[in-house]
Amino acid sequence: MPTRTEPEAASAAAETYYEIQDFYARQMQLLDQGYTEEWARTFTENGVFAANVQPEPVRTRSAIAAGAAAASAELSAQGIRRRHWLGMVSARPRPDGTVSAHCYALVIITPRGGKPSIGASTSCDDILIREDGDWKVQVRTVMRDDLA
Amino acid sequence: MPTRTEPEAASAAAETYYEIQDFYARQMQLLDQGYTEEWARTFTENGVFAANVQPEPVRTRSAIAAGAAAASAELSAQGIRRRHWLGMVSARPRPDGTVSAHCYALVIITPRGGKPSIGASTSCDDILIREDGDWKVQVRTVMRDDLA
Amino acid sequence: MPTRTEPEAASAAAETYYEIQDFYARQMQLLDQGYTEEWARTFTENGVFAANVQPEPVRTRSAIAAGAAAASAELSAQGIRRRHWLGMVSARPRPDGTVSAHCYALVIITPRGGKPSIGASTSCDDILIREDGDWKVQVRTVMRDDLA
Repeated sequence: MPTRTEPEAASAAAETYYEIQDFYARQMQLLDQGYTEEWARTFTENGVFAANVQPEPVRTRSAIAAGAAAASAELSAQGIRRRHWLGMVSARPRPDGTVSAHCYALVIITPRGGKPSIGASTSCDDILIREDGDWKVQVRTVMRDDLA
Repeated sequence: MPTRTEPEAASAAAETYYEIQDFYARQMQLLDQGYTEEWARTFTENGVFAANVQPEPVRTRSAIAAGAAAASAELSAQGIRRRHWLGMVSARPRPDGTVSAHCYALVIITPRGGKPSIGASTSCDDILIREDGDWKVQVRTVMRDDLA
Repeated sequence: MPTRTEPEAASAAAETYYEIQDFYARQMQLLDQGYTEEWARTFTENGVFAANVQPEPVRTRSAIAAGAAAASAELSAQGIRRRHWLGMVSARPRPDGTVSAHCYALVIITPRGGKPSIGASTSCDDILIREDGDWKVQVRTVMRDDLA
């Protein structure tokens, strides 16, 4: 027995959820295709990337770009194709207009001529903000399951 | 050549679809973090959990909680992190106000210090109902692919 | 600091995104359940299926159905259950009313009594069109990562 009236149209929350899913797809396609500068621009200028695999968070867009470029070049040299799958997204607006989003992330690794496997299983916590007509990541925190 | 007019706004069906994706994410985060009592409350009081891996369906929220707690404690003792990925969701309203949802589910297993792998590939059929301001599962049927 | 007003309702773009996610789920459930004729009808009559694993694109719905039926029969004979996961979807409308959609796709393979694994990691580019009240694929291009 439903306890509230069926909505006649989709809400602002549905709009935000759709936008974040689409943003995550476009964001990680950039990284997976090696466009590391463009990927770094999906973070705010003072964006922070924290991870339990790193001793310290990476701070600012330029440092995030540099770290991504180094990792991307290494994979490329090894002939490995990497894809980031973000899924199981939940999102909640915060009073300051940002959105707190939580998701799971898998890294799928495929060597040229070889078999795909799961390189890492992680959780990903983001603070997202609308800026210049799109979403950007203010703070991302990635926790790898093997280290947790 | 499109055969209908482009919609000007998103529909109630889009709202329901977004809500179910967000519900699935929050529901399985609870289980994967070991909050088995809270997870069981995402089922109705008389909820049913059926699976081809079990001889009989588990009936009522308290029995579902007990089963989940036992499995969660065992994984924890083994140092294994588990994540449930639900995806490829399709959903249809039913005349009685409930929603029939179908999805695929993967269980990703990561031992501490080890490599992630797919513990199980399954299909998941749900009857969902709005209750107390959120979705709840009335009946869930999980079919593991290796046993099908 | 948000740079635009929070929307009060979800947009046509959100509706399209929801419809495509739901379409992808229903489409690939058909293929994974062996309904290859029904699956082929999710392509337009003159639909094209291109892939870097094939020397030439498969053209027309009937040729797509024949190829799918052969692959499905072979898997069935081997006792293998296959699931296609499409995710990380991004979608953009085109001036002619079609939609350009990009996603990642995983093929999950489970032998009867065995362990699931990733059979293939791919990218998938679609041109989608509304026809007879649902989406259909005009052109699909699948690139397997091990061959790229």
